[in-house]
Amino acid sequence: MSNWEARYATRANRMRASEIRELLKLLDQPDIISYAGGIPDPALFPTEAFRKAYERALADGQAGPALQYSVSEGYAPLREWIAKRLAALGIVCDIDNIVITSGSQQALDYLGKLFLSPSDTALVTSPTYLGALQAFNAYEPQYDQLTPELGNMTPAGYQDTAARNGGRPKFAYINPDFSNPAGETLDRAGRERLLDLADELDIPIIEDAAYQGLRYDGEPVPPILALDIARKGDIDATRTIYCGTFSKTLSPGLRLGFVCAAKPVIRKLVLMKQAADLHSPTINQMAMYHAAVDIYDAQIERLRATYGARRDHVLTALERYMPEGVSWTKPEGGMFIWVTLPEGIDGAKLLARSIETERVAFVPGQAFHADGSGANTIRLSFSLASEEVADTGIARLGRLIRQVMAEL
Amino acid sequence: MSNWEARYATRANRMRASEIRELLKLLDQPDIISYAGGIPDPALFPTEAFRKAYERALADGQAGPALQYSVSEGYAPLREWIAKRLAALGIVCDIDNIVITSGSQQALDYLGKLFLSPSDTALVTSPTYLGALQAFNAYEPQYDQLTPELGNMTPAGYQDTAARNGGRPKFAYINPDFSNPAGETLDRAGRERLLDLADELDIPIIEDAAYQGLRYDGEPVPPILALDIARKGDIDATRTIYCGTFSKTLSPGLRLGFVCAAKPVIRKLVLMKQAADLHSPTINQMAMYHAAVDIYDAQIERLRATYGARRDHVLTALERYMPEGVSWTKPEGGMFIWVTLPEGIDGAKLLARSIETERVAFVPGQAFHADGSGANTIRLSFSLASEEVADTGIARLGRLIRQVMAEL
Repeated sequence: MSNWEARYATRANRMRASEIRELLKLLDQPDIISYAGGIPDPALFPTEAFRKAYERALADGQAGPALQYSVSEGYAPLREWIAKRLAALGIVCDIDNIVITSGSQQALDYLGKLFLSPSDTALVTSPTYLGALQAFNAYEPQYDQLTPELGNMTPAGYQDTAARNGGRPKFAYINPDFSNPAGETLDRAGRERLLDLADELDIPIIEDAAYQGLRYDGEPVPPILALDIARKGDIDATRTIYCGTFSKTLSPGLRLGFVCAAKPVIRKLVLMKQAADLHSPTINQMAMYHAAVDIYDAQIERLRATYGARRDHVLTALERYMPEGVSWTKPEGGMFIWVTLPEGIDGAKLLARSIETERVAFVPGQAFHADGSGANTIRLSFSLASEEVADTGIARLGRLIRQVMAEL
Repeated sequence: MSNWEARYATRANRMRASEIRELLKLLDQPDIISYAGGIPDPALFPTEAFRKAYERALADGQAGPALQYSVSEGYAPLREWIAKRLAALGIVCDIDNIVITSGSQQALDYLGKLFLSPSDTALVTSPTYLGALQAFNAYEPQYDQLTPELGNMTPAGYQDTAARNGGRPKFAYINPDFSNPAGETLDRAGRERLLDLADELDIPIIEDAAYQGLRYDGEPVPPILALDIARKGDIDATRTIYCGTFSKTLSPGLRLGFVCAAKPVIRKLVLMKQAADLHSPTINQMAMYHAAVDIYDAQIERLRATYGARRDHVLTALERYMPEGVSWTKPEGGMFIWVTLPEGIDGAKLLARSIETERVAFVPGQAFHADGSGANTIRLSFSLASEEVADTGIARLGRLIRQVMAEL
């Protein structure tokens, strides 16, 4: 076989190595202070709860179902547990509104597969979650920019641009709480504006709620799906597709997330999952259910206290060490702070130099922009930043940025 | 949202409920003798080995990696274990030729995604594995029929038919050992003919080896990939993409399979997996590795003895109770016997009547045919058939078929 590329589907051209993920592999060196990966601190995993949970899943009388094929919808007790938690957020639903996925990444892949024909347009914020762009890219869409925080979006403009690209707007994707990568939260008015826009364009909203439970201060904002239910009276009349995950709270290694939406969408996703991987692992769904029942609330409290303090360490260090002309977001939760450097400083070049001279890592911001802008931005993750790490690393980074600014 | 259908991608039209899977849900009644589901007997799961394996995966010092994000390629020790087992089959490869998938079903989905643009042609046998058709359908292909057992395939014919359908042949998919649903094994000459055809068409072969380890008698036939390596001298020069799974041997509930192929294909599948679900669950890959090291060979021996005897029970009962005019395959392994009824008897109608009057279940064969033929065929799974179940159930089925034949 001399030339595989010639045999691939056209969509395979869109599959490229993520430079960031390649980069993260290189950064796994003990002397580097890393603000790069958006990963949970493994020291905070509820290991003991999972030990007990797997024991229970494999106990006599349970082991058969744990190790056997199961339904594509997912383990019913886990879906019931999720439905109850969502009800507390204003998302009144039943288990037929929920399908279990292998992380919310799989939900994004399936939603791209469900909605996007080549040349259709996906509306995304700028910056947006890199993994969403990667998932959607396989379905060959165009992108246009969502700006719900500004309120200056015109439905006709989106439609015209999409038509020029040979398709139509198919959905709006947003990560509304402590977003990856910007660390920003869309306020209630912005969410209502987004729902208005989606109504006018008659498109679904994909609400990526990966970080929603990890709020450290400020007032919770209702999920977009909750606001949509409040408008329409019933989840089955809504257009918001809510994607949740256990990866940021209990464990990413079990690869369990979920979608909550109107039943017609869930039924399509179940069919898609049946054809694509049959179901997510039964044993993990059972173990996650046991662990969630046992320790979910305590775990969330623990994460809030720890990550909240780490965010404060990094914000304090940024105040202390960053020169004038550098600005950053002040997230109320999640794992990320978004830093904007003066025009003319390139985040990717800064990283190369930072690794070489300061041994400090972060993620350059350009890859989070569907249009290739944002060269002067970087993402800092604070999930692994102790007080000392925050102070030392940000001091070094500040020193480097001053130096680079002086050279401009 | 009044009309979701109008917003879906064109490919969503191909996603339909599998009548068979819907049927299997209905058949979960204790008084039904079922030859329907192609599922392992849960009484044969190596539960104790998995208990120990999960304990080890979650032991101190292991738990962090087990619960954390991991690489898309899969857990290296598991890939090494697979590479060693494959070498014994003549598939000389290293771990960079292997990617872990969530069951081989996910491999089929990814391979459809990688190769099929709409209107391209997939070559499949008739009958073929229903789950493969479901996975490929999402990418809107046409189908043409592979007949490697006959040797009468003409490359020009395939190309012309594909061109008339607006595309070209993209791959040949085959389940060569004790196939699902036919229970037939392609002999070495047939495999060589298939390789010749693939060379002439310059297309990859997808070798679905789900049942390969489950041989009960007869001589093993080398995997198509092994024959391809023997021709080309190096796996990276081959065109065969080998899909394996742990679902039929150790457990389907962990959802672990793998693809072994030339590195360019594996690299593409890794990118695809990164964008689609990041990776298969770390903890399951670690547990599967421990269980495989501990008990794989013993487990295979146990399954061979048990399923082999069950196959014999059903074959004996078929000889005893089936009327003249009914024929069936005599599989050397796997889980399935394929029964051909006299023309004019419809498998789906027979099932409805069988459930009602005889309380015996099986799967009608039509859904296993890409072209909608095969109405007079049915699939019997013997994986759950004890001697008594085989005798009683087949006796009832034979009685019904005699009755239906008398009414023709």
